[in-house]
Amino acid sequence: MKHALSVTRAQDFAAWYQEVIKEADLAEESGVRGCMVIKPWGYGIWERIQKLVDAEIKAAGVDNCYFPIFIPLSYFEREADHVEGFAKEMAVVTHHRLIGDGQGKLIPDPSAKLEEPLVVRPTSETVIGAAMARWIQSWRDLPLLTNQWANVVRWEMRTRMFLRTSEFLWQEGHTAHADKADAMAETLRALEMYRAFAEGPLAMPVIAGEKPENERFPGADATYSIEAMMQDGKALQAGTSHYLGTTFAEAAGIRYQDKDGGQALCHTTSWGVSTRLIGGVIMVHGDDDGLRCPPQIAPQQIVIVPMLRDGPEDEGVLDYCRSLRAELAALNAFGEPVRVLLDVKANKASNKRWAWVKKGAPLIVEVGPRDVAEGKAAVLRRDRLYKDDGKLATAFTPRADFVSQAARLLDDIQKSLHDEATTRRDAAIVPVESWAQVEAMFSGDEDAVKGWALADWSRPTGAALDAVVAKLKALKLTLRNTPLGWGGVSGACLFTGESAVERILIGRTY
Amino acid sequence: MKHALSVTRAQDFAAWYQEVIKEADLAEESGVRGCMVIKPWGYGIWERIQKLVDAEIKAAGVDNCYFPIFIPLSYFEREADHVEGFAKEMAVVTHHRLIGDGQGKLIPDPSAKLEEPLVVRPTSETVIGAAMARWIQSWRDLPLLTNQWANVVRWEMRTRMFLRTSEFLWQEGHTAHADKADAMAETLRALEMYRAFAEGPLAMPVIAGEKPENERFPGADATYSIEAMMQDGKALQAGTSHYLGTTFAEAAGIRYQDKDGGQALCHTTSWGVSTRLIGGVIMVHGDDDGLRCPPQIAPQQIVIVPMLRDGPEDEGVLDYCRSLRAELAALNAFGEPVRVLLDVKANKASNKRWAWVKKGAPLIVEVGPRDVAEGKAAVLRRDRLYKDDGKLATAFTPRADFVSQAARLLDDIQKSLHDEATTRRDAAIVPVESWAQVEAMFSGDEDAVKGWALADWSRPTGAALDAVVAKLKALKLTLRNTPLGWGGVSGACLFTGESAVERILIGRTY
Repeated sequence: MKHALSVTRAQDFAAWYQEVIKEADLAEESGVRGCMVIKPWGYGIWERIQKLVDAEIKAAGVDNCYFPIFIPLSYFEREADHVEGFAKEMAVVTHHRLIGDGQGKLIPDPSAKLEEPLVVRPTSETVIGAAMARWIQSWRDLPLLTNQWANVVRWEMRTRMFLRTSEFLWQEGHTAHADKADAMAETLRALEMYRAFAEGPLAMPVIAGEKPENERFPGADATYSIEAMMQDGKALQAGTSHYLGTTFAEAAGIRYQDKDGGQALCHTTSWGVSTRLIGGVIMVHGDDDGLRCPPQIAPQQIVIVPMLRDGPEDEGVLDYCRSLRAELAALNAFGEPVRVLLDVKANKASNKRWAWVKKGAPLIVEVGPRDVAEGKAAVLRRDRLYKDDGKLATAFTPRADFVSQAARLLDDIQKSLHDEATTRRDAAIVPVESWAQVEAMFSGDEDAVKGWALADWSRPTGAALDAVVAKLKALKLTLRNTPLGWGGVSGACLFTGESAVERILIGRTY
Repeated sequence: MKHALSVTRAQDFAAWYQEVIKEADLAEESGVRGCMVIKPWGYGIWERIQKLVDAEIKAAGVDNCYFPIFIPLSYFEREADHVEGFAKEMAVVTHHRLIGDGQGKLIPDPSAKLEEPLVVRPTSETVIGAAMARWIQSWRDLPLLTNQWANVVRWEMRTRMFLRTSEFLWQEGHTAHADKADAMAETLRALEMYRAFAEGPLAMPVIAGEKPENERFPGADATYSIEAMMQDGKALQAGTSHYLGTTFAEAAGIRYQDKDGGQALCHTTSWGVSTRLIGGVIMVHGDDDGLRCPPQIAPQQIVIVPMLRDGPEDEGVLDYCRSLRAELAALNAFGEPVRVLLDVKANKASNKRWAWVKKGAPLIVEVGPRDVAEGKAAVLRRDRLYKDDGKLATAFTPRADFVSQAARLLDDIQKSLHDEATTRRDAAIVPVESWAQVEAMFSGDEDAVKGWALADWSRPTGAALDAVVAKLKALKLTLRNTPLGWGGVSGACLFTGESAVERILIGRTY
């Protein structure tokens, strides 16, 4: 069967991923090392993510703020004892002026060297911690709940669009609390917010759990993640939430006067999701015809493509399409007005249809003179593109029927994308009881591996954990997380032989 | 009469401005040179601005994108012939790694020096131009209408919060067109969008006009602005829109194949408004009790302050407030649900009332046990805080009456802030016919000057314009803009004596 993309997932998943991004017009390389340009369809998805996550953040009583992009070098020195593991690959601003070199080139002006270099924020714990120390005096100021939507920069040697770029967009929540219980509750609230968002609007099943010690954010007492399984079986860490204990409070001096008049350190948290989520959506829902965009985050949920022939009947087709658009836009889906685009660009209808297939518009509606005459519309569900015979599963539907069904169809597409991904994911999580099983699962042809192992786990730390990590690394495997709420275990740890206390997911990762 | 701030506008406008920012809890110095922290109330205003401007941008068919924060040095060299006037004060990234210096300090790693330094974007014409050159092939791709919401950095020697900071937030629209007429129409559409936004949601009267040649954006063929008058009579350039001709298209190679198969350069535009608008709102609407926030951009339009006494009647007061909040939140104002906050923070009611006065919440409603008993609410309009006798103009209003009036009150506050500012501004624009009049107006006590001069103008250029600029500079004056649509002129130019072709505004500026 012929597909819209030149490479299939089965042939070369990495090349397929790049082709989806190009053909769905989501983003492109910018010509600036490791930085991408996010194009309108990709940015539209990000705007949808922002809108929905922001509403949840606000509903939780968290206030949006904005903090400086530059962080003085000395702030990182304060943290130096606990940021040893922190990537030091950061963009460093050293000069504040350009001058001509006298030969037609520009150079940083040697006389405009900064006394203290500034780091372009890789994350904002330090600079927000400094603000919290100013803002918090007493228990009355707690909890302090802040968030920012911002760009951050991490100098990456190998980049991949959306998944790992030098600059990316995210939100970072930062909160301060009176005690561990309150901070931990916030850490888990954010984690649950991310889980519900991923499984709801993104239709992306995830497993919420705690990262093992070696995968913690440097300085954190506990790191939690949501892990999603891509169609190649690899894991994508799609969001994280950290309980930071008093580590950052100590470094930044975030203290409060408690009700008894004593001074105490705050317990802080941080949590974030980023444009990486878009990479996850592509690799969870995409197929060999391009992206399939879950309706809740699709910039346009229904696209109407008029079949125009530069003839006298065009105006009648356009009129029909305009009134159809208005009828559909008056509907609600997922508690919001339905987003409908009438695509009047100068291009052949079939080209436009395939462009929207590749972009993953959930419903594509074509209207020609015959549809107008018959009062119909040719409706294509992006999640079920083909019939069994390999032909497009276009449904010629009476217009009124389509209008009355449209919101339900969007609901159904959302649900079916979720269910399809969940079924695939669940089938690809394999309980293992011995190292031999792990080896058998992951030692063959690398491309044949399509899932995760689930093992009993005794929560080793220190050198015992290092040994586990090294053993896994030889098979290019990593510890993903220990799922929350998956019930008790009774067996022995796959690695240490000691009594297991929880289960852990093992897999390859992005 | 005593006021909530320690310094009045009349005493020291600059100090008053800083105090409003502090007492309204809008923003603060970050400790990072020239960068501010935007706090929740200030950021909430920015979110309102973003929401409303973004809707206008989308309605105009402009697509949001995201472009890299870093711009390679060489991009600026391409522009070097026409960016001579461009501020070269920019943050330059020269290294991509930090290492320890062996003495407990971090330094930029000398072995991680970038081959080509990267500039933190001061504006994005160059990097977006490079993308446009990739995206545009034929006339079918035009117009190309893009916008981004982003942070930008301009290394400022003297900073002032919101008005001039090293980092600020803005939107920058960038469009490419087939010809001058289309590009100029877009330039003026954006200008009109800004005018309507300023005079509508911001309640800030502005004058839309063209900047004289010496005030053009470097490389632009024409620059337009909206100019607002602050309460000290100074001008604030509150938004700009540039017709860039083919200058940037030439530098970046933005060409298209026209309908006849020939190659032509695009005509481009750019336009932006920034967090500077918040500074304008403060200086147009603030009074000696703090900010007065126009209801359309107020993060909360009505704040309910319960008068609690840690007693048994508290629960009844809170119940009453909660149901009042729900009733008010079900209303619509300006086409959106009314934003109502019930302030239950642990603090004295009178402290909370004054905090909201200083923040400029449009309606402040206090509820005590007696109000509950009488079915009333104590309503304070922020725009009319005091009675003639100097006491607070609190209106004890039957609850049902207040609920039925609330949306109209918000409308009325919006309008009255606009009208007050317009009356003040109009009275402070003084037509002048001779240089002696200008000198008389601006040569006295500097603080006594509270407005702009309006002169006939022959549109001198080159050396003749330079002479005008120098003459004005001696009085610390600048040319603001030549208002659009103010009708014909018949007199002689104040400066050149030649026949005037338009009128020009002259004033001091931020």
